[in-house]
Amino acid sequence: MTYCVGLRLNRGLVFMSDTRTNASIDNIASFKKMYTWERPGDRMLTLLSAGNLATTQAVIGLLEERSKAADNRTPSIYDAPSLFQVARLIGDTVKEVIRISADGGQKGEATFGASFILGGQIKGGETRLFQIYPEGNFIEATVDTPFFQIGEHKYGKPILVRAYDADMSFEEAAKLLLVSFDSTLRSNLSVGLPLDMQFYEAGSLKRGYERRIEQHDPYFSAISDGWSDALKVAFLSLPPFDPNA
Amino acid sequence: MTYCVGLRLNRGLVFMSDTRTNASIDNIASFKKMYTWERPGDRMLTLLSAGNLATTQAVIGLLEERSKAADNRTPSIYDAPSLFQVARLIGDTVKEVIRISADGGQKGEATFGASFILGGQIKGGETRLFQIYPEGNFIEATVDTPFFQIGEHKYGKPILVRAYDADMSFEEAAKLLLVSFDSTLRSNLSVGLPLDMQFYEAGSLKRGYERRIEQHDPYFSAISDGWSDALKVAFLSLPPFDPNA
Repeated sequence: MTYCVGLRLNRGLVFMSDTRTNASIDNIASFKKMYTWERPGDRMLTLLSAGNLATTQAVIGLLEERSKAADNRTPSIYDAPSLFQVARLIGDTVKEVIRISADGGQKGEATFGASFILGGQIKGGETRLFQIYPEGNFIEATVDTPFFQIGEHKYGKPILVRAYDADMSFEEAAKLLLVSFDSTLRSNLSVGLPLDMQFYEAGSLKRGYERRIEQHDPYFSAISDGWSDALKVAFLSLPPFDPNA
Repeated sequence: MTYCVGLRLNRGLVFMSDTRTNASIDNIASFKKMYTWERPGDRMLTLLSAGNLATTQAVIGLLEERSKAADNRTPSIYDAPSLFQVARLIGDTVKEVIRISADGGQKGEATFGASFILGGQIKGGETRLFQIYPEGNFIEATVDTPFFQIGEHKYGKPILVRAYDADMSFEEAAKLLLVSFDSTLRSNLSVGLPLDMQFYEAGSLKRGYERRIEQHDPYFSAISDGWSDALKVAFLSLPPFDPNA
């Protein structure tokens, strides 16, 4: 499986993704699931992917090709006038890839589904965050739902729900996402290190801070150990249960 | 869906289950998912159920009937010589019910699957905890895996993994389970109050403390609010992320 999160803050966006893919439990590999298209001053687009790796790679491949080959540039994500149009373009590409995969050929047990989180900004528009479904349709993050998770999202959701704050700094959001990823990594083998992290500062129209968190990253280890201890302290701080109350 | 947990402690067992069932999102009802068979001094058996309600009710119904009707008493869970045999009996009953449901009749979209957690003690034997699958086979809790969850288990797992301790008191375990259920209730509409809780003291061979936690239960509210605050404090206590480190 996979775990990816896109978080909308008042000051911009934060993305995080793991890198594990598995065809089955004994066939594990690492692939980056975060892709960025950037033309500084004009647009900055980041895409996170979950689902069938052949599908997600084909989608990225098509998007890449169409943004480069001169005679095949339309539709290109560099030409789309708005993030909404980029989301539509990616949705159409997903549908196209899944239709081709599902049409004929040997039937496999795996399905061809894939989901995406798209965030960024195009000059003249707002900073926006979308979730794109395998069906090609999509939804946008709002004040009420300021983050999207794809893949193995359940373990890491409770802490996001409780500690997210739209006014957070990028550093606080990074810490929050690392806690959410740590809870997921501990409970599910199909999500694995290294993790990719990226900040986008609203209005900057260029890629922000990026970091890959590898095995034995000192800060991630500190968060992981510290969170275990902090949770135990938090648990002890709750009032005791009284059977006779 | 459903959320049920059975926890094995050194001093006994703790069970907790929610009561929500839904046929679809607009067809919600409350059913108790905790069943106890008791003959004080001889045996105490508690069963938690998740899955297709028609299947789980049929399984319970058959187990009940066969423990009462004199001419149909075999196999009865009151006659089984060990908890292992009770688990087998329940597994066979699940298989029987699913086979009958799946055989002919109108095909529905829902599947007939159901899972169970069985815990308790029979005179002369140990206190034991089992998880029974829809296929009728089962596994037993061990020192390494001292608890079972069925239904919507992911949201509530991280806190169980981190705060469980085999030496816990019943009161501490009750608090732990309430935190785990609170995380699940907040993230998933298919799990709902009231909750049923039961303790079993190893060696007692009778049903222990029981409580139903309703909406607006003062202790559960205190845990729920307190856990939000405690998590925020725990989160703040972690070292800040330094992009330049």
